[in-house]
Amino acid sequence: MPVVLPKKEVLWVNIGDAIAARRTVFDEYLNGYLREAHDGSGIFDAFSYSLLAGGKRIRPVLAMLAAEAAGGHGEDALPVGLAIEMVHTFSLIHDDLPALDNDDLRRGLPTCHKKFGEATAILAGDAMIFNALSVILAAPYPPTAKVDLCTAFAEVCGTNGLVQGEYEDVMAEGIDLPLDAIESIYTKKTSRLFELCMYAGARVACEDPGLARCLAGFGTHLGLAFQAIDDILDVTSDSRILGKSTGKDISQSKATVVKVLGIDGARSWAQDATDRAVQALAGLDRDRTGVLRGLAFWMLERVM
Amino acid sequence: MPVVLPKKEVLWVNIGDAIAARRTVFDEYLNGYLREAHDGSGIFDAFSYSLLAGGKRIRPVLAMLAAEAAGGHGEDALPVGLAIEMVHTFSLIHDDLPALDNDDLRRGLPTCHKKFGEATAILAGDAMIFNALSVILAAPYPPTAKVDLCTAFAEVCGTNGLVQGEYEDVMAEGIDLPLDAIESIYTKKTSRLFELCMYAGARVACEDPGLARCLAGFGTHLGLAFQAIDDILDVTSDSRILGKSTGKDISQSKATVVKVLGIDGARSWAQDATDRAVQALAGLDRDRTGVLRGLAFWMLERVM
Repeated sequence: MPVVLPKKEVLWVNIGDAIAARRTVFDEYLNGYLREAHDGSGIFDAFSYSLLAGGKRIRPVLAMLAAEAAGGHGEDALPVGLAIEMVHTFSLIHDDLPALDNDDLRRGLPTCHKKFGEATAILAGDAMIFNALSVILAAPYPPTAKVDLCTAFAEVCGTNGLVQGEYEDVMAEGIDLPLDAIESIYTKKTSRLFELCMYAGARVACEDPGLARCLAGFGTHLGLAFQAIDDILDVTSDSRILGKSTGKDISQSKATVVKVLGIDGARSWAQDATDRAVQALAGLDRDRTGVLRGLAFWMLERVM
Repeated sequence: MPVVLPKKEVLWVNIGDAIAARRTVFDEYLNGYLREAHDGSGIFDAFSYSLLAGGKRIRPVLAMLAAEAAGGHGEDALPVGLAIEMVHTFSLIHDDLPALDNDDLRRGLPTCHKKFGEATAILAGDAMIFNALSVILAAPYPPTAKVDLCTAFAEVCGTNGLVQGEYEDVMAEGIDLPLDAIESIYTKKTSRLFELCMYAGARVACEDPGLARCLAGFGTHLGLAFQAIDDILDVTSDSRILGKSTGKDISQSKATVVKVLGIDGARSWAQDATDRAVQALAGLDRDRTGVLRGLAFWMLERVM
């Protein structure tokens, strides 16, 4: 007699397979890029080490799923997915530096500056920004799409997004911030890059600004939920499972939703953000967006 | 009776005036940008401090002169000139960090990390890269020009240029390198950004790849001469005149042409590079390239 899995587990297995399949495609693409681009220099060794240190690849997978949801092929989003993964990795390398979060462990391995020294880590992070941009510009997209993608890339990562968010995060250490200020930091440091994944995936597949806006909105709310779960795991998980130092938020008195709402309150907050993410897909084709909906709930349950 | 200046001084005065006039236009543009873009955050304070700390503005002036040499208006090159000045400033902020050159003084003022702390300096440098890119993309250039400009920008600054050059420069400390290896470091860390100024100025003014190549070639050789003079001044000048620490190359055992050739040999090497820069303009309109020719020889004589 076949084993009958409960409905939720069946869904999880399917979503997990769907993500894993795209992740495999992305990892092959990433390896191909590194084989071709590696020039034998030490800066590229550090750069490759951090890129290959086994991230979840959630951002490029989102870009691929966004392209599919917009009627295109997931593979079309590989260059933008790679560029975003490179920018994400640059931000991790710099955030881990002694002057910022001072982390020794990332994805179960020594952080870039622990392995290669601070000078190399700073410069490898810097170089990765420019090389990420080169990846977008070398892709076979039309010039107008490249301009839109690079414009969004710059906007989401500079003083209106990623880097500003990291700055506010560092400056908020030891300060009691209200929930809306914490949401503003989460939006900049995490959410806007998720928004970019979805926008970019949609933009390489179509020229429909309304559709791109809906998919980007999914990314915005999903990013908030993702960051809240990250901060819950920092308290509840073990560094052996998580692959990075845990308990750092409390010891550094970081501004997190967990600090304001407690673990249960933070989980409920993440659930609300996830609901809003799924609502952003309301007007779109259900068949094309099924994996995105499943992924949103699956991410709530992640343990690493 | 009017004072008759010797021919060389007359030329210097004219070239100095021509550069100062363009520098004034650029500084107004930069101030306008900062007034409009400043969002009141601390990262922008650090960012503005370093941008306004009184650099020579040689890079944006070159971009303006390249646009004029290509038959356009110098003003058309202001956005690319600003983007390049921002990237140059990012590289100074990161190079001055304790993990790299560990400099306390830059342009007569405390370096960014001495004034704002290391975390802010690292992040202000990072943000400046993305904001520089936004400046190019927001400019009124056609999409194909934006793609060409961003492609050159990424290529010249990543692992084939600026950041790689700084990495090799740091790694070469204490090592006796031959002249060709030093020239390779100079090319990456300095020369390619000069090349970009000239290419970008030409590209916003015309679509003639041959003309852009000649002007870019001028930048390549001029950048080598500029770096050699910088390294001569590190030995011969005073920090009060130069506005930055002097004697650092010897104390850090940096790989410079002065270390290999001595001061007179380095000056002769810079003279040769200047001659090659001027030769790169051989086929171009003499009236349009007069200031560039004069600037090349004027730069050989600079004292700061």
